[in-house]
Amino acid sequence: MSDTIRPGETLLPFDPGDRIEAGLSFVGVIRSDWSRGDCPRNIARARETGRPARIELRPGYAAALEGLETGQAIIVIGWLHGARRDLARQVPRHAGGPRGTFALRSPVRPNPLSLSVCRITWMERAAGQLGLDAIDLFDRTPVVDLKPWLPGADIPPEAHPG
Amino acid sequence: MSDTIRPGETLLPFDPGDRIEAGLSFVGVIRSDWSRGDCPRNIARARETGRPARIELRPGYAAALEGLETGQAIIVIGWLHGARRDLARQVPRHAGGPRGTFALRSPVRPNPLSLSVCRITWMERAAGQLGLDAIDLFDRTPVVDLKPWLPGADIPPEAHPG
Repeated sequence: MSDTIRPGETLLPFDPGDRIEAGLSFVGVIRSDWSRGDCPRNIARARETGRPARIELRPGYAAALEGLETGQAIIVIGWLHGARRDLARQVPRHAGGPRGTFALRSPVRPNPLSLSVCRITWMERAAGQLGLDAIDLFDRTPVVDLKPWLPGADIPPEAHPG
Repeated sequence: MSDTIRPGETLLPFDPGDRIEAGLSFVGVIRSDWSRGDCPRNIARARETGRPARIELRPGYAAALEGLETGQAIIVIGWLHGARRDLARQVPRHAGGPRGTFALRSPVRPNPLSLSVCRITWMERAAGQLGLDAIDLFDRTPVVDLKPWLPGADIPPEAHPG
């Protein structure tokens, strides 16, 4: 983790990693073809590659999959453990200039949670495994939550299809 | 926090709250009209009430809002600190029977993160405050992340409008 900043970037007045107020427990891990050097920068790019991925849940979580179905869309929340947490404003390589951390999907954020909307392509419930159409996360990224994606909740009103 | 379970519910073989592997730092707090007794059960219901809400960021985070605009949709991730974490299968009051935790948007989950898609209705960037069209969270729920909502990422391919 680098402690240098680029021109236009702004540090928070503290490192959020030094002010922990709640704790996460990993429920499983992403298995993907991606490593730090070649990981798609977002889920749209990841879908374009056509490369699937999977989630391996830890022992005990298989029953938590009941009710999910192949073909269904889910929200995968991961933990980007290597990402720095102390930038309020950053200059991503692909962006035109500095932007606030909350206006970006960059992994660099006070709580480095990732959020990817995926389709379930297969399930082995008893083994606690499920296939994903795509993922924009390195192999072995910890997973902290799965939620069903619901159009009535997860599309803002004015952008709803139809 | 109750330690009883309903018929059809299944406990995890451990409490995830006892196996903490990563830490969250709160970036701000929800201010809403809702308390435990009257909180809308999801964001769709919250929108129907027509009651707005706001986020008050902690000092230091104002610069992280740069680039967000009034009218834009954002994803608000909150921390549901009172929720139990040890159910693999649960029977929510409104559901017909037991379902896996990962098939539900219930606050009861191994990592009680909430996810709400909201529209920004006003911003006071310097004060670190922004208005939301609606929220399905109690007053003073801690906020752990804000992300821009992006149709190309946050709608699964087959359900994309058009």
